[in-house]
Amino acid sequence: MKNKLYFDISKNDTKTKENLFQKICKENEEVGYYSLPSQDISEILEYASSFDEKIEHVAVIGIGGSSLGIKAIYEFLKPTKRMKKELIFFESTDPISISHQLGQIDIEKTHFIIISKSGTTIETIAVFKYILSIQQNEKNYTIITDDDSPLSKLADKLKIKCFFIPSNVGGRFSALSNVGLMPLSICGVDIKDLLNGANRVKKSFFEDGFLQEILMNKALFYARNHAKYHINCIFAYSETLEYFCEWYVQLWGESLGKKQKHSAFHVGLTPVGLIGPKDQHSFLQLLTEGTRDKSATFIKIDDFKDNLTIPAVSLPYLESLDILNGVAFHDLINMQCCATMEALINQNDIPIDELSICRVDEFSIGSLIFYYELLTSLVGQLIDVNTYDQPGVEYGKILLKDKLLKLKDQL
Amino acid sequence: MKNKLYFDISKNDTKTKENLFQKICKENEEVGYYSLPSQDISEILEYASSFDEKIEHVAVIGIGGSSLGIKAIYEFLKPTKRMKKELIFFESTDPISISHQLGQIDIEKTHFIIISKSGTTIETIAVFKYILSIQQNEKNYTIITDDDSPLSKLADKLKIKCFFIPSNVGGRFSALSNVGLMPLSICGVDIKDLLNGANRVKKSFFEDGFLQEILMNKALFYARNHAKYHINCIFAYSETLEYFCEWYVQLWGESLGKKQKHSAFHVGLTPVGLIGPKDQHSFLQLLTEGTRDKSATFIKIDDFKDNLTIPAVSLPYLESLDILNGVAFHDLINMQCCATMEALINQNDIPIDELSICRVDEFSIGSLIFYYELLTSLVGQLIDVNTYDQPGVEYGKILLKDKLLKLKDQL
Repeated sequence: MKNKLYFDISKNDTKTKENLFQKICKENEEVGYYSLPSQDISEILEYASSFDEKIEHVAVIGIGGSSLGIKAIYEFLKPTKRMKKELIFFESTDPISISHQLGQIDIEKTHFIIISKSGTTIETIAVFKYILSIQQNEKNYTIITDDDSPLSKLADKLKIKCFFIPSNVGGRFSALSNVGLMPLSICGVDIKDLLNGANRVKKSFFEDGFLQEILMNKALFYARNHAKYHINCIFAYSETLEYFCEWYVQLWGESLGKKQKHSAFHVGLTPVGLIGPKDQHSFLQLLTEGTRDKSATFIKIDDFKDNLTIPAVSLPYLESLDILNGVAFHDLINMQCCATMEALINQNDIPIDELSICRVDEFSIGSLIFYYELLTSLVGQLIDVNTYDQPGVEYGKILLKDKLLKLKDQL
Repeated sequence: MKNKLYFDISKNDTKTKENLFQKICKENEEVGYYSLPSQDISEILEYASSFDEKIEHVAVIGIGGSSLGIKAIYEFLKPTKRMKKELIFFESTDPISISHQLGQIDIEKTHFIIISKSGTTIETIAVFKYILSIQQNEKNYTIITDDDSPLSKLADKLKIKCFFIPSNVGGRFSALSNVGLMPLSICGVDIKDLLNGANRVKKSFFEDGFLQEILMNKALFYARNHAKYHINCIFAYSETLEYFCEWYVQLWGESLGKKQKHSAFHVGLTPVGLIGPKDQHSFLQLLTEGTRDKSATFIKIDDFKDNLTIPAVSLPYLESLDILNGVAFHDLINMQCCATMEALINQNDIPIDELSICRVDEFSIGSLIFYYELLTSLVGQLIDVNTYDQPGVEYGKILLKDKLLKLKDQL
């Protein structure tokens, strides 16, 4: 992983940085996600190695932090990796979507993984109840939840295999816990390498590698300028990173959109996920000429390991595009990334940085995930919010329960 | 279509509204997309009715405005409509994505539609050149481009069937032109009904229906408060609207993110597309407790035409969720929409409106598309930008050409 910042950082921040580093070291002892790169994965590996070979689909029933991380990693790897099982996601109460997904699978050849940290997520339990009505064999289920949650007790009673989420690992920080590792391992993803990637970033940060300085500088810039540059775009130049962007949107938005701890003032950094070159033909105009309230991080893949090349054919009337002839697509897409980045840097008032990962593999996506988790924690400390809670969504849940009770009364 | 605004509009705007309405009436005579609902579609219907039955896949090679609208309509209808052909989109230069897509199709049973308004879009021509090297039969191609573009001349020379885009219809406003109608018609989409939906909205606006007042009030609010509420979220409660949101992001961002015509000041309204209930577990926390810089439009589907119901099963330890028993999923998702909306309305400082479409069909999506196109034009007039150009993306293209030329020198 390489990372280069194209914006100015004031240099006299030694004290602030020392202070920030101390706070993150303290979090490292208390907040669970920091320990995930070095967890024991033997139980998962054993479970995956003896997994039923007749199963073709693995259906994840989960929402938010219980699906986005798994999907980000799975969809990143899928186009270039031969997966042992196909993952399918039930992450909505939309009846059209549920019916459509059910039409894609053979229920007898599908294993269902129910994931809910609290064990009482309405969407997840609603779909689980429905699936239970058409598939009663407990061997076709696995549950992932907090130890001691109502769902873990149900698993015990129904004799469904259960994996636990450490209680100090929040949903949106759980991609590298059992939540992500269990389903991905079944599909044949090398979860050891995933954690190795995360560990490399962790070491580089905590043991004074190059990421310590860069991550702190980046976080300081984002925090100090959060009232001005409060929209943070990822501009990822590969279709494989589409769902990584969705994962980032939850991580960034839900962690940093808060009332401040000491002022109760509303703050927040708004995440936007973009895919290049597609979004050069969409959001880029707004980035280039719109209000100066956005920063952008360009993510590049150094080696696509694909030699697909534009043939040296000259088309009548399109001779001006002969400059494309003989160019490999991987060179073209990376040149497009550089050209867009340069155009924005030359504007002088759009903060840009460049993040490169080596290739499309487990190590790279593991490192990318841990990099963004660390960055989120750093910015959360600096803008004085509780990075790990989400109190703002409770009120809607109470209103929904009222509506459900009223509906019962009518029936 | 119903639309209700939950924010205050000052009432003494008669002059401003008259003025605005006049300007839009003038645009109606000059800007091409306004006329699309009443265009002649006989040529397309004829072409589609005699389309090769052996073709299984229709591959759209296009990017931005040449793919987003088609995808929005196709993916909205697909889960509930038996499509005659499967659409597949080549909208990137990512070699992994191109190789993966090619692996999904049988080249002999695939028809390729090359779409580029200018006829010289780099991404599109790059992929077209590659496809031409593996499929030379001109009968397997259709081209959609501006009359007189280099691509239309090439079509003529290679004897490839060509449809035209009216020169006064911009890419991001072209969903209801040949760009969208031709590929969708081949798949069996009822394009007449699509246009009927658009026409209903057009009439309601221009002939003093309920949308005239509502659209102008909404546009006035967005324009007057654009410095404060400059992030506009769509929160659509159905997975079927996922790609509609992507289409909206281009339309809104690329049309309204500009230098002002008379001041050269950077302005812009940032679009965010959200899907409920999924994004209740992601972006909602930021919307509820983050900076007060966002408005949200909730889109609901009145009738899902799907009776999937949560079974009346009581699960041990999860008895608190028996309130879900016997509830239809379509009632649940719409209650979730209402609960989230109410929670936000009660905050008093987040501007919310509710937009309902009848059902998942051509008429509804046609109306939704024209509604957003009109709203974009109205806001564009009010914030003093040229809604229909995109000058901010040119510099990156020049830098890319330089890089390609340098690469040639090295080879």
